[in-house]
Amino acid sequence: MVSNPKRQDSNQLEQLVNDAQILFDEADDVPFTREPYENALGLYLISPSGALIEPERLVIAEHKLTTLGFDVRIDKAADSRYMRFAATDKERAKAFSRAAKDDASIVMATRGGYGLSRILHHIDWKLLEKNPKVYVGYSDFTAFNLALLAKTGLPSFTGPNAVGDFGADMVDDLIADIFVEAMRGELEILSFIAEDADSVDEEGILWGGNLAVLCSLIGTPYLPKIKKGILFLEDVNEHPYRVERMLIQLLHAGILSKQKAIVFGEFSDYKLTKFDNGYDMAEVIRWLRSEVNIPVITGLPYGHGEMRVTLPIGKKVGIATEDGMAYLVIDKHEHDVETHTDNQGVYLNCGCSLVCQGKHETPSKPEAKASKKNKK
Amino acid sequence: MVSNPKRQDSNQLEQLVNDAQILFDEADDVPFTREPYENALGLYLISPSGALIEPERLVIAEHKLTTLGFDVRIDKAADSRYMRFAATDKERAKAFSRAAKDDASIVMATRGGYGLSRILHHIDWKLLEKNPKVYVGYSDFTAFNLALLAKTGLPSFTGPNAVGDFGADMVDDLIADIFVEAMRGELEILSFIAEDADSVDEEGILWGGNLAVLCSLIGTPYLPKIKKGILFLEDVNEHPYRVERMLIQLLHAGILSKQKAIVFGEFSDYKLTKFDNGYDMAEVIRWLRSEVNIPVITGLPYGHGEMRVTLPIGKKVGIATEDGMAYLVIDKHEHDVETHTDNQGVYLNCGCSLVCQGKHETPSKPEAKASKKNKK
Repeated sequence: MVSNPKRQDSNQLEQLVNDAQILFDEADDVPFTREPYENALGLYLISPSGALIEPERLVIAEHKLTTLGFDVRIDKAADSRYMRFAATDKERAKAFSRAAKDDASIVMATRGGYGLSRILHHIDWKLLEKNPKVYVGYSDFTAFNLALLAKTGLPSFTGPNAVGDFGADMVDDLIADIFVEAMRGELEILSFIAEDADSVDEEGILWGGNLAVLCSLIGTPYLPKIKKGILFLEDVNEHPYRVERMLIQLLHAGILSKQKAIVFGEFSDYKLTKFDNGYDMAEVIRWLRSEVNIPVITGLPYGHGEMRVTLPIGKKVGIATEDGMAYLVIDKHEHDVETHTDNQGVYLNCGCSLVCQGKHETPSKPEAKASKKNKK
Repeated sequence: MVSNPKRQDSNQLEQLVNDAQILFDEADDVPFTREPYENALGLYLISPSGALIEPERLVIAEHKLTTLGFDVRIDKAADSRYMRFAATDKERAKAFSRAAKDDASIVMATRGGYGLSRILHHIDWKLLEKNPKVYVGYSDFTAFNLALLAKTGLPSFTGPNAVGDFGADMVDDLIADIFVEAMRGELEILSFIAEDADSVDEEGILWGGNLAVLCSLIGTPYLPKIKKGILFLEDVNEHPYRVERMLIQLLHAGILSKQKAIVFGEFSDYKLTKFDNGYDMAEVIRWLRSEVNIPVITGLPYGHGEMRVTLPIGKKVGIATEDGMAYLVIDKHEHDVETHTDNQGVYLNCGCSLVCQGKHETPSKPEAKASKKNKK
């Protein structure tokens, strides 16, 4: 509702800024400790899915993203509303064209919800192909991530949504850190606890996202045909039997058998009942292993819960597991042993069997840590 | 838990029969008025999906189906349990083979739930093809209806489930009547109120069922490729945005454009919220009409609510609408004007533009009425 003064008359603007300021002050209690980047990256915010529930949080998101080193621009329809959608279908589709024509290098979704499926056939894919951008968002945005890859071959990112993650009262430092590093091409390796992981040491195209959204693209021109891929999945509010039914669709459609690894993120906010009688997500994983001869890794800190890392979709990555840890090698790199720990003490765990011959120590708190290149 | 004495020791059996008798007596308060058929039809009950929630109701279903003119046999695994499923995957798949080898002409599901997706690749389709049966069930059974058509070309029925409908305390007479007529090949025409119906007068292969289950088969070998079809859909507990996302999948997969008509059954048990802001099932229908140039008919009395007609899947039927009514011509027939009303006063509304030149009166209570041939 605010953020772009050009679109507001002064009275409206004053009220909205005041509303936003209240949230803003609260949110500011959690300062960012990150040193500012010298070069701000242009970041264009669009709302391709649901209407913003609290539009005033867009200002907070704008401020925090600015603090994180981005030059934020907000699409004119980002805070519109049409029924449950952020704007009419045509307006939301056009926002992608406006973003493509803007000189911002990054295009970020404000939030998810539902709405991208409605506009996939209205998006000007040729225009987007001619003007490559770094796209990021998650949940419903999975439809765009996958459709972009299918229609143009371009990779993109799944990661935080602007308002949900940076317009919140509390911003998760790790979500922010990994997001910034991914946007700046500094993210090399993600390591995470994966106690229930099959042994794997592979490379492949990383793809996936929200399972329900991904499955809703099967049979359509918007699902990329990925062979030898590393498929990662998450979902929210889906009972394990529904998760399993979707996995079965991937199985019977011949998609799972083409993958080199299946990586499970977080499956959250479902309720088991007495009738389930022992059936749960662990059983779904057990069943999956009985049906496919592909390494299955669980524990990826990605989903609708408290943590979501930023991951490329459509990019070749490496994956390896060892001693209850999984290593997702986003960017291959070469360095000597000394650089394996950065100056902030973040352990640069790089899945060395894939990348280099350095000697590693086990990280003391090995939860979703990111290794990165030096700041530019 | 009961019903087949051979599998129970006498103590167990006595207890279970007592349990069942209590429900049975209550259920018997609603007598069937139908005259018995002289020739009972063999009907084999299987549980291909969820475990029976109240297994003792199987006896009630058996009794009522017997009263309705069926010689009921119960598969040995029909009242088993494996987690939330009626039995292990292999056992549930084998039940189809046992049914195929039985001399019963009808195979009926005891209930839906979830479980057929898990066993589609374990079912012996060749055996089923060699031993054609009249299959019936709904909800999760849609997976079987469609897979059977895709794998063998054989039609089947969607209609009541044995325990859910005939093991209930109250059995709906119209559900029972239409089911019996369909099983005996007596069902000719179904007419229903369809106030929001586009004009249509077409013939095509009738197919569909539960929307979520149907969409879970897209991209797999278990979805039949129906051209010039009449697609009917229902669902339960799915928010309109999820229904729409599934319709979009059918749209983008090129499936909708191949149909001659889309018929909406009941979509029940979802909750709209304030955030929907005017978005509802009516908007979904409106949106669909804006995207496809295919007649859309609503009001089919089929779904998870109080009423579900029995419909063939994979059979050529006719559909016509006129003056707020829709006519689904299941079986073409020829007769003179006098036979348009049967001796029970049921109006034989036959969509005459498709079938004959008889003169019709408007039915006084035109809700889901069935026309039928004389009892045999």
